[in-house]
This record gives sequence, C-alpha cells and structure tokens, in this order.
Amino acid sequence: MIIGALEAGGTKMVCAIGNEKGEILKRISIPTKTPETTMPEMIAFFKNEKVERLGIGCFGPIAPDKTAENYGCITSTPKIAWQNFNIVKAFGEALSCPVGFDTDVNAAALGEATFGITQGLDCSIYITVGTGIGVGVYLNGSLLHGMMHTEAGHIMIKRHREDTFAGNCPFHGDCFEGLAAGPAIEKRWGRKGAELSCEEKVWEMEAFYIAQACVNFCMTYSPQKIVLGGGVLKQDMLLPMIRSKFEELMAGYIQTKELADITNYIVPASLSDNQAILGCIKLALNA
Amino acid sequence: MIIGALEAGGTKMVCAIGNEKGEILKRISIPTKTPETTMPEMIAFFKNEKVERLGIGCFGPIAPDKTAENYGCITSTPKIAWQNFNIVKAFGEALSCPVGFDTDVNAAALGEATFGITQGLDCSIYITVGTGIGVGVYLNGSLLHGMMHTEAGHIMIKRHREDTFAGNCPFHGDCFEGLAAGPAIEKRWGRKGAELSCEEKVWEMEAFYIAQACVNFCMTYSPQKIVLGGGVLKQDMLLPMIRSKFEELMAGYIQTKELADITNYIVPASLSDNQAILGCIKLALNA
Repeated sequence: MIIGALEAGGTKMVCAIGNEKGEILKRISIPTKTPETTMPEMIAFFKNEKVERLGIGCFGPIAPDKTAENYGCITSTPKIAWQNFNIVKAFGEALSCPVGFDTDVNAAALGEATFGITQGLDCSIYITVGTGIGVGVYLNGSLLHGMMHTEAGHIMIKRHREDTFAGNCPFHGDCFEGLAAGPAIEKRWGRKGAELSCEEKVWEMEAFYIAQACVNFCMTYSPQKIVLGGGVLKQDMLLPMIRSKFEELMAGYIQTKELADITNYIVPASLSDNQAILGCIKLALNA
Repeated sequence: MIIGALEAGGTKMVCAIGNEKGEILKRISIPTKTPETTMPEMIAFFKNEKVERLGIGCFGPIAPDKTAENYGCITSTPKIAWQNFNIVKAFGEALSCPVGFDTDVNAAALGEATFGITQGLDCSIYITVGTGIGVGVYLNGSLLHGMMHTEAGHIMIKRHREDTFAGNCPFHGDCFEGLAAGPAIEKRWGRKGAELSCEEKVWEMEAFYIAQACVNFCMTYSPQKIVLGGGVLKQDMLLPMIRSKFEELMAGYIQTKELADITNYIVPASLSDNQAILGCIKLALNA
C-alpha cells in the first residue's frame, strides 16, 4: 500500500511516502505559509504519488474528536491563516482517501509505540523539548484525547532555586514550557542552547525541569517508559542528568520492575527523528 | 444479584451489600487491624449475605495488573501487616466468587462515572483531598493503570509565595499532598482545618494548591470534568475559590465547550460520600 504521511509543523510541512513496514520511501519539505499556497503544493505531491491513505500529525491545538462538528480542524493556533482550517476535510476531498489525524506529539508517541522503543508496551509517553514542549500519550493501545488532547507542556512545576528568569510562556509565564523550552534557555542565558554545551549550570537547571516533569508524568500517567525527543535533547550530557535528578526527586516512592533500571525507563527517541512521520504512517493505517 | 462492595481503607473497612442499580442495602464498618483478625470478620459478613460477586476499592499502592504475578496484592504500604497481602486471592478463595479490584480513588472515579455526575462522559477524574490526596482516572471507558496506577497526589507544584511550611510528605516534602492534604493544613496552621473555617488566608492558600493541581490534570489528562471529594472539600467556601484560581492560572489557554462553564467543569462529588462504595459495586459487576 502507498501511504502518505504529513508532519504538519508551524514552520515546515514534511510530506512523506511510506509503507506498512514503516519504511520511508520519499520525503519533501515545504515551508508553512498559508493554506491557500501550501495546501495545493502538498496535494500535488500526494496526488502524484497516488497515496491510498494519509496520516497527519499536526501542530495544535487541533480538534481530534471524530464525533465533534469541527473534527479535523486546527483550532486556536496563533498562526492566524490556519485558524479553524479543516485540514482533514481538505485532504480527504482532494485525495479521495481515508485520512488519519492527531497531534504531532501523539504521532511521535504512536511512531515509537509502533516501530520504535515502546513497541509492545501498553502505556508510554513521548516528550519533545524543542521550540515548544509537547507530550504524546499512548495508553492501553490508543492515543489520549479526552476533552481535546494533552497540553502537558504547560504544567506548573517548581522553580529551580537559583533561577531568576521570569519564564517565557505568553499564557502562563513559568510553566514547564515557559521555563525549559529552547527559547527559554536562550532568553535566560543570552545565547542559544547549542552554544552553551560547556556550561554545566545551564544543563543542571534544564535537567531539573525536565526531570520534575518526568516525575509528574510518572505520577499521573504511570507509563511503562518515558521517551525524550526534540532539539534540546541533542545535548548528550542532558539525559544522564535527567535520570539522576528524576531518581532523586522520586525518592523511591514507587517501586516497580520498570523503575528498577532507570536507563531503560527514561530513554531517548529511537527512530532517528522519524518518530512523528512514522506515527503518521500508523495514523493512516488506522484511518 | 447480591453484590458485595468493600472500600478498604487504612483505618476502616467499609463492607456493603448492593445491587446493579447502585442501591446500597446494608453496610458495616470494621476497624483495619491485621489480615489475621480483620479478614475473617469481613468474610463472615459477605458469606452471611451470600454475595455472588465482590468489588474491592483498596488503599494502595496495589498491584491491579491482572497479568502480573502479584495481581491482587497490597504492595509497599507502610501498614506492615498488609504488605504483600493478596486480598483478591483471599476473598476469591473464601467466597468462591468473582472479585473486582482497584484503588479506592479509581473506585470513586468509577462510582461517579457509573452512577454519578460524570455518567456518560468518556474521560473524567476524581480527586480526593483528605488525610492524603489521591486521583482516580477514568479514560475512554476504563480506569487508568499503566505501569501500576496513578499516584497523582504526589506531583510537584509551585509553592504559594507566602507559604513557609516545609511540606509534610515523608518522600517528597512539598509535593501536592505534602502541601495540601489535611495533615499539612494542621501542621502549617497549628489547628485542624475544621477549626479554621473563618481564616480566609488558610483557604486562599489551599485553593491555590488544589487549583494548580487541577490545571496540571487538565493539561495532562484533558478530562471532560473534574470531580472533587474528600474531607477538606467539606469547607464550602473552598470550591468557588478553586474555580476562580483555576481560571486565573489557565489564563484562557484552552478553549473548549466544557471549560466555558467552570461551575460545570470542576464539580463536587455527587454521591453523598458513597462514590467509592458504588464504584466497588461496578468493579464487582465488571469482574
């Protein structure tokens, strides 16, 4: 089967062709402008490839509830041109094929659960720390939606006692994303994270925030594994610091076989940054 | 059908008889001593009533995973006599009937979802704030377990800027439970919550903590409704303060029809403190 996969981001649209085995056969990237200019380009690509199904992992917030009137829409995004645009309907009509739809982070969680490191587990989460922070949640074999979908990048967490930065979230100030996403690092320290690799204090603080979020997600979702991805995690020293701080903060409260080996509990994304696009393939298969 | 329900608590065991309609026909309460003394009393009660099924909502942590070797056990509880006691096996053998089993807070969430205010919803949570803090999670028609079960009373949240109390959780100090459960209120202010009804500062701080947890659970679980129960919520002024602080902290970030009416989103338990025992009846029916 020829499967189309679209990782729809705020700055670029990654369009790919793949198959049931999770092989990616072709991929293009298109800048995200307006629906009027960007949609026809994407449709032309997928039409030309004769896709039989399409899966979309989309920047949010979105309406993923199939029973809702606005199912398929990108809703209250700050990207005005895309507000209330029904991307599922548009592709469904243009390509005359089934379309699967979820958030980009749920797609990444699904990609890891289908083809990656959380394969075979009932409950896992995927956290991306990059320009923003998002969490994809895979529970009992399906992606969590609830009222809408998780926005777990915006949980409130404790401040590091040496952190004087006010926080960067336009809604919540010093929520998790406001304290720990890439732009927060840059604003706090005056340089981009990539240029701060040697500054231990930077990563000690960052690890404290990510570890604290992992503790909260461990307490709330009780996942069997936590997968970490996104640009900030490219800093290799960060993962061991997160694991160590996580164990310190958990203080032995939960005793399970999964937590007995922390290096196998908090793990890096396993699919070479293809976790979301592979999740889109699975979304297409499920559509 | 004659259904047995057991709300197993650390200080008392509430044993009840009910039916499929959620009617409670008889109820006794037995002090929680050791399995050797308390189990025979409970078994005698249920045997005498000729129960055909039993549902147990139990103090934790427990092993609710049916595929695990220790399924049915109370695990690392500080109540030494009950550590690793397999309560499901003990009742199953003594009563020769199917036994349902979950945490006390999951039972309460299930009670509300089956007979109470969250009936008909796919995704709801139940938070109890009393001697401890627990969260029951009902998602897509079933109770959340994952690796174990939620322990969402122990999430990390921000401290109130005027709060100098160190926190009361033996594991985490100032986690949600350590800051906001009944014993934390008593230690911080030197008197029990029930004696502090007129002290506005007490409840402003308490509302800040509970609202902040509600924000985090709204972001993580995306529930269609949040139900609040437990002894601390008996303070009538608290609920409106929680709602108001919740809206302030959310800052309009999530726009859904459910959140449009906060008085219908964060609601008090609806089953006259019978939510857990009624959930046990449903656990028995599902067994």
